[in-house]
Amino acid sequence: MRFLASKETGAICLFGAPCDSTASFRPGSRFGPQAIREASHGLETYSPVQQQDLADISFIDMGDLELPFGDPGQALSLVEEKTSSILSSGAIPFLTGGEHLVTLGAFKAVERYHKDIKVIHLDAHADLRDEYLGSRLSHATVIRRVSEIIGTDRIKQIGIRSMDRTEVELAGNLSSSPDDVIIWGQGSPIYLTCDLDILDPSIFPGTGTPEPGGITFNELSEMLLKLINSLNVAAIDMVELSPMCDITGTSSVVAAKLVRECLIAIGRKVKEENHAS
Amino acid sequence: MRFLASKETGAICLFGAPCDSTASFRPGSRFGPQAIREASHGLETYSPVQQQDLADISFIDMGDLELPFGDPGQALSLVEEKTSSILSSGAIPFLTGGEHLVTLGAFKAVERYHKDIKVIHLDAHADLRDEYLGSRLSHATVIRRVSEIIGTDRIKQIGIRSMDRTEVELAGNLSSSPDDVIIWGQGSPIYLTCDLDILDPSIFPGTGTPEPGGITFNELSEMLLKLINSLNVAAIDMVELSPMCDITGTSSVVAAKLVRECLIAIGRKVKEENHAS
Amino acid sequence: MRFLASKETGAICLFGAPCDSTASFRPGSRFGPQAIREASHGLETYSPVQQQDLADISFIDMGDLELPFGDPGQALSLVEEKTSSILSSGAIPFLTGGEHLVTLGAFKAVERYHKDIKVIHLDAHADLRDEYLGSRLSHATVIRRVSEIIGTDRIKQIGIRSMDRTEVELAGNLSSSPDDVIIWGQGSPIYLTCDLDILDPSIFPGTGTPEPGGITFNELSEMLLKLINSLNVAAIDMVELSPMCDITGTSSVVAAKLVRECLIAIGRKVKEENHAS
Amino acid sequence: MRFLASKETGAICLFGAPCDSTASFRPGSRFGPQAIREASHGLETYSPVQQQDLADISFIDMGDLELPFGDPGQALSLVEEKTSSILSSGAIPFLTGGEHLVTLGAFKAVERYHKDIKVIHLDAHADLRDEYLGSRLSHATVIRRVSEIIGTDRIKQIGIRSMDRTEVELAGNLSSSPDDVIIWGQGSPIYLTCDLDILDPSIFPGTGTPEPGGITFNELSEMLLKLINSLNVAAIDMVELSPMCDITGTSSVVAAKLVRECLIAIGRKVKEENHAS
Amino acid sequence: MRFLASKETGAICLFGAPCDSTASFRPGSRFGPQAIREASHGLETYSPVQQQDLADISFIDMGDLELPFGDPGQALSLVEEKTSSILSSGAIPFLTGGEHLVTLGAFKAVERYHKDIKVIHLDAHADLRDEYLGSRLSHATVIRRVSEIIGTDRIKQIGIRSMDRTEVELAGNLSSSPDDVIIWGQGSPIYLTCDLDILDPSIFPGTGTPEPGGITFNELSEMLLKLINSLNVAAIDMVELSPMCDITGTSSVVAAKLVRECLIAIGRKVKEENHAS
Amino acid sequence: MRFLASKETGAICLFGAPCDSTASFRPGSRFGPQAIREASHGLETYSPVQQQDLADISFIDMGDLELPFGDPGQALSLVEEKTSSILSSGAIPFLTGGEHLVTLGAFKAVERYHKDIKVIHLDAHADLRDEYLGSRLSHATVIRRVSEIIGTDRIKQIGIRSMDRTEVELAGNLSSSPDDVIIWGQGSPIYLTCDLDILDPSIFPGTGTPEPGGITFNELSEMLLKLINSLNVAAIDMVELSPMCDITGTSSVVAAKLVRECLIAIGRKVKEENHAS
Repeated sequence: MRFLASKETGAICLFGAPCDSTASFRPGSRFGPQAIREASHGLETYSPVQQQDLADISFIDMGDLELPFGDPGQALSLVEEKTSSILSSGAIPFLTGGEHLVTLGAFKAVERYHKDIKVIHLDAHADLRDEYLGSRLSHATVIRRVSEIIGTDRIKQIGIRSMDRTEVELAGNLSSSPDDVIIWGQGSPIYLTCDLDILDPSIFPGTGTPEPGGITFNELSEMLLKLINSLNVAAIDMVELSPMCDITGTSSVVAAKLVRECLIAIGRKVKEENHAS
Repeated sequence: MRFLASKETGAICLFGAPCDSTASFRPGSRFGPQAIREASHGLETYSPVQQQDLADISFIDMGDLELPFGDPGQALSLVEEKTSSILSSGAIPFLTGGEHLVTLGAFKAVERYHKDIKVIHLDAHADLRDEYLGSRLSHATVIRRVSEIIGTDRIKQIGIRSMDRTEVELAGNLSSSPDDVIIWGQGSPIYLTCDLDILDPSIFPGTGTPEPGGITFNELSEMLLKLINSLNVAAIDMVELSPMCDITGTSSVVAAKLVRECLIAIGRKVKEENHAS
Repeated sequence: MRFLASKETGAICLFGAPCDSTASFRPGSRFGPQAIREASHGLETYSPVQQQDLADISFIDMGDLELPFGDPGQALSLVEEKTSSILSSGAIPFLTGGEHLVTLGAFKAVERYHKDIKVIHLDAHADLRDEYLGSRLSHATVIRRVSEIIGTDRIKQIGIRSMDRTEVELAGNLSSSPDDVIIWGQGSPIYLTCDLDILDPSIFPGTGTPEPGGITFNELSEMLLKLINSLNVAAIDMVELSPMCDITGTSSVVAAKLVRECLIAIGRKVKEENHAS
Repeated sequence: MRFLASKETGAICLFGAPCDSTASFRPGSRFGPQAIREASHGLETYSPVQQQDLADISFIDMGDLELPFGDPGQALSLVEEKTSSILSSGAIPFLTGGEHLVTLGAFKAVERYHKDIKVIHLDAHADLRDEYLGSRLSHATVIRRVSEIIGTDRIKQIGIRSMDRTEVELAGNLSSSPDDVIIWGQGSPIYLTCDLDILDPSIFPGTGTPEPGGITFNELSEMLLKLINSLNVAAIDMVELSPMCDITGTSSVVAAKLVRECLIAIGRKVKEENHAS
Repeated sequence: MRFLASKETGAICLFGAPCDSTASFRPGSRFGPQAIREASHGLETYSPVQQQDLADISFIDMGDLELPFGDPGQALSLVEEKTSSILSSGAIPFLTGGEHLVTLGAFKAVERYHKDIKVIHLDAHADLRDEYLGSRLSHATVIRRVSEIIGTDRIKQIGIRSMDRTEVELAGNLSSSPDDVIIWGQGSPIYLTCDLDILDPSIFPGTGTPEPGGITFNELSEMLLKLINSLNVAAIDMVELSPMCDITGTSSVVAAKLVRECLIAIGRKVKEENHAS
Repeated sequence: MRFLASKETGAICLFGAPCDSTASFRPGSRFGPQAIREASHGLETYSPVQQQDLADISFIDMGDLELPFGDPGQALSLVEEKTSSILSSGAIPFLTGGEHLVTLGAFKAVERYHKDIKVIHLDAHADLRDEYLGSRLSHATVIRRVSEIIGTDRIKQIGIRSMDRTEVELAGNLSSSPDDVIIWGQGSPIYLTCDLDILDPSIFPGTGTPEPGGITFNELSEMLLKLINSLNVAAIDMVELSPMCDITGTSSVVAAKLVRECLIAIGRKVKEENHAS
C-alpha cells in the first residue's frame, strides 16, 4: 500500500523509519509510517487550500526501512544511508517517523550534502537534553545532538511548551516565531523537522507524550505551508505519530493530511523552479 | 426511549433513518439516531444560550424508520414517504442520520411540498460527485442528485474543505458564508442539511470520514441558530454521526446538544409565528 | 501487503471480498480480508501441527476485489466472476469475507464448474431464512439461496446453535457431525464455507453477531484439517471477521492462523495428488 | 426498549435494579439491565437447546427501577417493594443487576412471601464477609446478610473460587455441587441468585472483579437449566454485568442469552404446572 | 507513587478524595486522584509559562483518603476531617476528586477556619439544585449546599453553560467573569473549586457529564493562574476527572498539568509572602 | 504500590524488569510489572486452591529496576546484577517482565550461583532462533542464548505451538510434558521461566504476539503448582504481559493471580524445608 497517488519516480521521496527504541513513556510510533499511509486512502488527493492535486506532484513512496529493534545506533545509520541515496538521486527526502530520534540519521546525511543547512524545529518539547535516562541517543536529546554538529546559531524552534530546567537557557536562545524564522532562513537550505505533538492533544491524542496547550490543525497547516513557500526546504520529516495511542483514529488522518499538504507545497515549488530555470 | 422531553404530538417531527449502506470508509452511522436519543438523556432540557426549555417546545420523537440493508433505493423511498406524511400533517420534519444519502429521500418529499425550496448544505465534503465507486446513490453524490432536481442556483454550501478535482468548479460556485446565505435565502422555504463532519475531528471524531481543519462546536451552534432565526426552515436534517467511531462518547453528546438547540430554535419560531397570526 | 509467504502463481488463489452491505447488527466485515492479511505477518509460516511450511505451498494472494457499496447483487456478480476465472485457471479458490452473503457469488461459479458439488457449512447461525428484514439477499438467507440451487440433500451444517422458528425444521434436516459429513461427502467435490462465528465469542469476539456457546480454536482447527484431509475440497471460504468489533486484535490472528492451516492442508493434498498422478 | 419478545402481562416479571453504589473496584454495573435489554435484540427468540421460543413464554419486562445514587439502604427498600408487588400479583420475579447487593432487597421480599425459601448462590466470590471497607451493606457481604435472616443451613454455594480468610470456614460449609444441591433443594421454594462473574473472564470480561479460573458459558447454561428444571424456582436474579468493562460487547450478549434461556425454562415449567393443575 | 517532585513536608498539602457515590451518568471519578498522580510522571516539573520548577515549591502529596463506598455522608466527614488537620498545620489544602460532592466536605472545614471565606466556582454545570434524583447530597447540589452555609453573596460562578430551569434565576445571580471576580474577591480568603468539565469535551472527554461548548486548555490555565496570582487562595480543589471515560489518556495529562501549574503558582505566592514578612 | 501483602523482608524477592526494547510486533510489556502490581489489589490474598494466605508467606516486592531504553545489553546487565544480589542474600528471585529477553540476565546470575541449574520453559513460542531481525539479543532468541551456556540437555520446553523452520529440530528435542519434566528435573535446582502467551488468547489477549490454540488458566495454574511442588525451583520469572494490549484488563488479573499462586507455593515449600531442617 502506498501513500495516496504515489508514483514510480519523483522529485520528492517519501519513506518511513518505523523506530521507537528510546520511547520512554508510551511506545508505538514505529507503526506511524504505516498508519499515515493507510489513513491517506480516506483522504482526497486534491487540496482545496492549495488548489492543487497530489496526482500532479512528482513524488514516490519508497515504503518503510527495515530497522533493527533495540539498536538505535544501527537504526540511525540505516536512516542516514537511505537519506544519502535519495539526495544523490537529486530528490528531496521526506521522512515519516517513528520517534524523533530518527531525525538525527536523516539530518547527518543532509548536512553532508548541504553544508550550510539550517534546522527549523516544530515541537512541544525542546529535545535539548544532553542525556535522557542514561542515554545520549534519545527522542529527548535529538536536537542537542544536531546542535553539536552545526552549532546553535543554525537552529530555530517554534511551539516549544515543555522542557526541564537544564534546557531552559538553550531553549530560550533558540525560540522563535514563524515570521522571524522566515527572515532568518533566507538563502540557506532548510531541514524542517516537525514533531506532531506540537499540536494540541485534543486534535492529536495519538502520540507518546501529549502536552496540553498546543496549536490547532489549521495553525500548524498554515505554518508549514508558509515555511515551505517562503524558504528553500531541502529535507523534511514528520514524526511521533503513535497509532497505538490513536484510539479515535483521527491522529493518523491529521498526520496524513499534513503530509499531503507538504508534498503538494514542496512539489509545486520544485515544479516552478524547474520551469523558471 | 425518546429524545429528552419528547411529547405525543408536535409542530416538529423528529425521526431517524438508520441507514449506512453506501458508507465507503468506516460504516456505523446507522446507529446514529439511537445514539443521539440516548445521549440526550445526559443533557438538560434547558438551553441557557436561548433561555428556553425544550419542555416548552411542541415536538414529537417518532423513533427510527425500519430500513432494509443493502438496498439504498428502497431506503430512500421509505424516508421520502415518511417525510411526506409529516409534511401533510403540517409539521416540520427533523431527520437524523444515518449516512448523508438519506437526505435525498427527505429532500424529494420536501421539494414536492415546497416547490420553491432552497438548500443550505453544511459539510466538510462537497458531496457533488456524479458517481462514487460505481454508484450514483452515495453519500458522496447526494448534493449532486439534489442539484439535478432543483438546479445549482438553489443550493449553497458552507464549510466545505474536501473535494476531488471533478467537484472543484461546481463547489466553487456553491460555496458561501452564513451571512451571504441569509440574504440569498430570504423569502424561500429552506431545507437545512447538516453533515456533522463539518466539525473538527477534535470535537467530533465519531464520524466515518473525519476531515481535519473543521469548525468548533460553538461556531456550528451559533451558525445553526442564526440560520434558523433568520430564515424560514421548512425541513432540517443532521447526519453522519457514527457511534462505532465515537470511542470517547462525546460525539453523540455533541450531536444531541445540537439537535436540542435546533429543536428549541425552530419550535420557538413556530410558536411566535402562530402567535403573530 | 500480501498474506504471509504469498507467491506469484499458485494452485490455490486467495482473494478477499470486502463486502458487508446486508450486515444487520454490527457492520465492518468489509475490513476482514485486509485484517487477515495484516495479522498473518505476526505469525510464523511454519505449522507445527502439520509439520509443513507455508513457504512450500503453491498459492497466490490476489488481493481484494473492488466491490460497490450498497449494491449486493452487483457485488455477488463480481465475486462470481472472479471465482470463475480462478477455476478456469485450474486453481482452487479461497475466499475471505466480508459478510456471509459473498459465499453465494463464489458458490454459483463453483456449482457451474463442479455440477455435483456438495456444501459443508460451519456456522453458529443456520442462515436458512427465506428473507431477512425484507431482503432475500442477506447474510441470514445465504444457505437458503444455495439450497434453492442444489437442493437440501447436498448441504450439511455443523455447529449451528442459533436459528429462528422458521428455520427449525430445515436446520434439523441439515444438521450433522464432522464424522458423518466425511462419509456423506466421499466422492464429491466439496464447497467448504466457514463462518468464523462458529467459534465461541471468548476466542472470536470480532464478529457482527457473536453467539455464546461456540467451539474452541483447537476444535475448529482440527475439524477443518480433518475435513480437508478426508474430502475433496474444490473451494473454500472463511467469512465474518469484523475488525471493527475485534477490539483486542486476537480475532484477526485467529482468522489468519486458520487461513494458514487451511492453505497448508489443501496445498499439501494438491501436491500429493500431483505426485500420485 | 424491552427485552426481546416482551409482552404486556406475564407469569414472570423481569425488572432491572441499576445500582452499583458499593462497587469497590470498577463501577458500572448500574448500566447492566439496559445493556442486557439491548443485547437481547441481536439474539433470536428461539432456543435450539430447549426447542422452545421465547415468544410462547408468558413474561413481561417491567423496565428498570429508578434508584437513588449513594444510598444503598434506600435502593434496597425500593427493590424489596417492587419484588413484593410482583409476588403479590402471582408472578415470579426475575431481577437483573446491578451489583450483587441488590439481591438482598429482592430476597427479603421473597422470604416474607415464601417462609421456607432456600437460596442457591452461583458466584466466583463467597460474599460472606461481615463487613467490607467499613460497610455492612456491600456486594461482598450480601450472602452473609442473607444468612442472618434464614441461617446458613438454607444456603448453598456453587462455583466459589475467591474468598478471604475470614470467609473460609463458612464458605467451606456452604460449598456444594449442582447434583447435591438438587437433592438438598427438593420440596422447597428456591431463590436462585447468579453472579455472572462465576464465568471465566475469557467469556465474561465485562464485570467489576473478574476472577480467572471460571466455568464456560455452556457449563453455566446447562447448570442453570438443570437447577430450574429440577427445582421449584420462586425467584431468580442475574447480577454484576458491568457494560463499562465490557469492551468487546460480548459479555452483554452472554448475559442476555442466559436471561433468555432462564425465562424460557421457567416459563415452560409454569405452563406445564398450570396444565397439570 | 507520588505527584511529580513531591516532598516530605510542605506549605501545600495535596490529597485525593476517591469518591463517586452520587455520579448519575457515568461513574469512575473515584480513580481520578490516582490517574492525576500517574500522568504527572509523563510531565516535566518545570513550567515554561511561570518560569518556575515544581521542585522548588514546598508541597507534599499525602496520597488518597480511604473512603467508604455507598455512604456519601461519611465520605464527606472524612474529607472535612482531613482538610481541618491540614489547615491546623498551617498548610493550604489542595484536594483532587472524585466527584464534585467532595468539595462540600473540604469547604466545611475551610469555612470553620476562615469565617469570611468566599467561593469561586469554575464549572460547566451550575450544581445549584436543591435535590437531585431524590438526594440532597449530590454532585448536582453541592454549590446549593455551600450557599446554604455562607449565602449566595459569597459565591461566584464562571463558565456555567448547563442548568435546569430551577437553577436559572440563582445561576444568573452568581454568574461572573474572571476580571469581575478578582475585584469582588479582594481582601477575602478564597476557596477555589474547579470542575474540570468546564473544559470543552475535545480536550477533556474523560469526565462523567461532558458538555460541549467549553473553554480551551490555555483559557483555563490562564484563568487559574490569574485568579491565584490576584487573590488569596486559602484552599483549592480540582474534581471530576473520570479515568474510565478517558479513553485517549489525554484528560489525565490535562488534569495533571493544571495541578502542576496551580501548585507552582500557589507555592510561589506563599514563598513571596514569607519573604515579605 | 506493592504487590498485595508485600513485606519488608522475605525468602522470595519479587522484582520487575520493565524492558521491551526488542519487541517486534506490539511493544508495551515494559508496563507489565506495574500492571501486575496494580491488578493484585483487586484480588484476595487467600488462595482457596492451596488453602493458604499470601499474608503468611515470606516475600518482599522490591519494585521495578530502572532500565535504559534502547540498550538491551545494558538492561540485561542490570537484571543480572539485581538477581545476583538477591541470590547472595539467600532469597529466591521472582522476576516479572517485560519481554522474554530479560530472562537471559536473570538466568546468567542464577547459573553462576547454581552450577547444575536446569531450565523449564513454558511458552507458545520456541524462542530458539540464532538471530531475529538482525539481532542476537531478542525475545525470539533468548532460549537459544541460554542453551549456549548450559547446553540443550539441561532445557525442557512445554506448550510450544509456534516456531519457524530453523527451530524445528531443536524444538523437537526440547519438547516435553509436565510429568516427564518432573522426573527429568529431580535433584537439580530449576530455573522456571513462564512466557504468559502459553495461555490461549481468549484468556490472555494482553501480549505482543498472541498465538491461538493455547492452554486455559486452570491448566497453567495447575501445571505451575505441580512443578513447584515436585521440584526445587531456585528462580522463577513470568514475562510478556503487555498492558497496552490488555484492552479488557483481564490479562493483568490473570498474571497477578498466577504470581500470587506461585509466591504462595514457593513460600510454603521454603517454610516446610526450614521446619524440616
